[in-house]
Amino acid sequence: MRGSLTIAGIGPGCAELMTPAVSKALQSATDLVGYDTYLARVPEIEGQRRHASGNRVEIDRSLHALELASQGRDVVVVSGGDPGVFAMAAAVFEAIETGDRRWRDLDVRVEPGVTAMLAAGAAVGAPLGGDFCVMSLSDNLKTWDLIERRLEAAARGDFVIALYNPASRARPHQLSEAFAALRRWKPGETVVAFVKAAGTEHVEQRITTLAEAHLVEADMRTLVFIGASTTRVIERDAKEPWIYTPRSERALG
Amino acid sequence: MRGSLTIAGIGPGCAELMTPAVSKALQSATDLVGYDTYLARVPEIEGQRRHASGNRVEIDRSLHALELASQGRDVVVVSGGDPGVFAMAAAVFEAIETGDRRWRDLDVRVEPGVTAMLAAGAAVGAPLGGDFCVMSLSDNLKTWDLIERRLEAAARGDFVIALYNPASRARPHQLSEAFAALRRWKPGETVVAFVKAAGTEHVEQRITTLAEAHLVEADMRTLVFIGASTTRVIERDAKEPWIYTPRSERALG
Repeated sequence: MRGSLTIAGIGPGCAELMTPAVSKALQSATDLVGYDTYLARVPEIEGQRRHASGNRVEIDRSLHALELASQGRDVVVVSGGDPGVFAMAAAVFEAIETGDRRWRDLDVRVEPGVTAMLAAGAAVGAPLGGDFCVMSLSDNLKTWDLIERRLEAAARGDFVIALYNPASRARPHQLSEAFAALRRWKPGETVVAFVKAAGTEHVEQRITTLAEAHLVEADMRTLVFIGASTTRVIERDAKEPWIYTPRSERALG
Repeated sequence: MRGSLTIAGIGPGCAELMTPAVSKALQSATDLVGYDTYLARVPEIEGQRRHASGNRVEIDRSLHALELASQGRDVVVVSGGDPGVFAMAAAVFEAIETGDRRWRDLDVRVEPGVTAMLAAGAAVGAPLGGDFCVMSLSDNLKTWDLIERRLEAAARGDFVIALYNPASRARPHQLSEAFAALRRWKPGETVVAFVKAAGTEHVEQRITTLAEAHLVEADMRTLVFIGASTTRVIERDAKEPWIYTPRSERALG
């Protein structure tokens, strides 16, 4: 098969955080396929076809991209952040595995990008300085029981926790329930940080504790960090504090 | 204080994976501070001072950078991958917290980058498609007991696991011990992937199972993925297989 399919991560928002490899892939594509919000961030090129679709149709979008590629087109699937982290890459490979066997011969590539937790971590310091767990709190794709089992495991391992998709209009109480569950295993003074729209000029941050975290509002553009026992706050005069997780845990034994 | 300090992540290796924001920071710095291997990847600019140091002196390097910044210099600490993930950002914030109180007034920024696990994941498919844990296997900075406790927690939560620093000359058996520990909780057929030098032209990959993973060699440039129960292999004719973790875990309950 002659066509190609690249799943490219455009980063968290601003063009300055998109890699040159992704810019190049976008420029040389014959077809761009993606969620309309992400496609809108990519400059238009004359003669290049754009196939925009709504949210939550990842498998349909993947099938469409694979069909275009198998017709010999050079297709880029435009993904937010990094394609491999709660984004488009897994959907495309799922479509390949369950679809036309000949799609396995296509030239498929993933171009990595800066995922939201890295931009969000950078905005508040270095919360991911130690071992950490990364979870999506969306229960569209898994049960609440499994989410709670993972929160418990992450707490028992004293990992820093990074939460994607913490809340939505359909699930406004999910994040509060996650904090309530974590309070069973982690002390109330545990550092919690909310970072909204990281990697854009509209970034907002809020540092609090697990005991008070349920008082802060989050949306789907918010990344939530829950510290390990070692995570620390550096207070500053008249400025937002920084948080970080020290690299060394020797003292903890 | 007039000086500035930016901790910039140059990505996993090739220039195409370094963000424009990091390139800009490198170009406008008066001083670059970093591990010599990473500094060697940054093009020299006339008049810009370079302060190279060896591996494992992260705190000394951070103190030096903070002193330069407090003298009014515009300093960039050059970090591999993303500065926040097992790299220089946590060391700098630790030096700030324990050092001169005036350093808290400095203009300190973290510029995110593509961390090794994103480039390594992209090379083999989409192993991080579900919830995942990220651990450094280095026991310089924490005890083996804590590492094993975290491996158990990650296994009990059925997270995908990404391991940084899996082996070194000083600790050749560490990775085999980690696999042996994981076999207590995870089945032998669990997907394991080794990706060496991801994000460079010398990338190498090897897909195997947890039962046979101890037969594969790894070094400090290798990223190891241990799948969740849902992680899958897509076989291809005469080509390396792809692996991915499906987004949906509804069937698992």
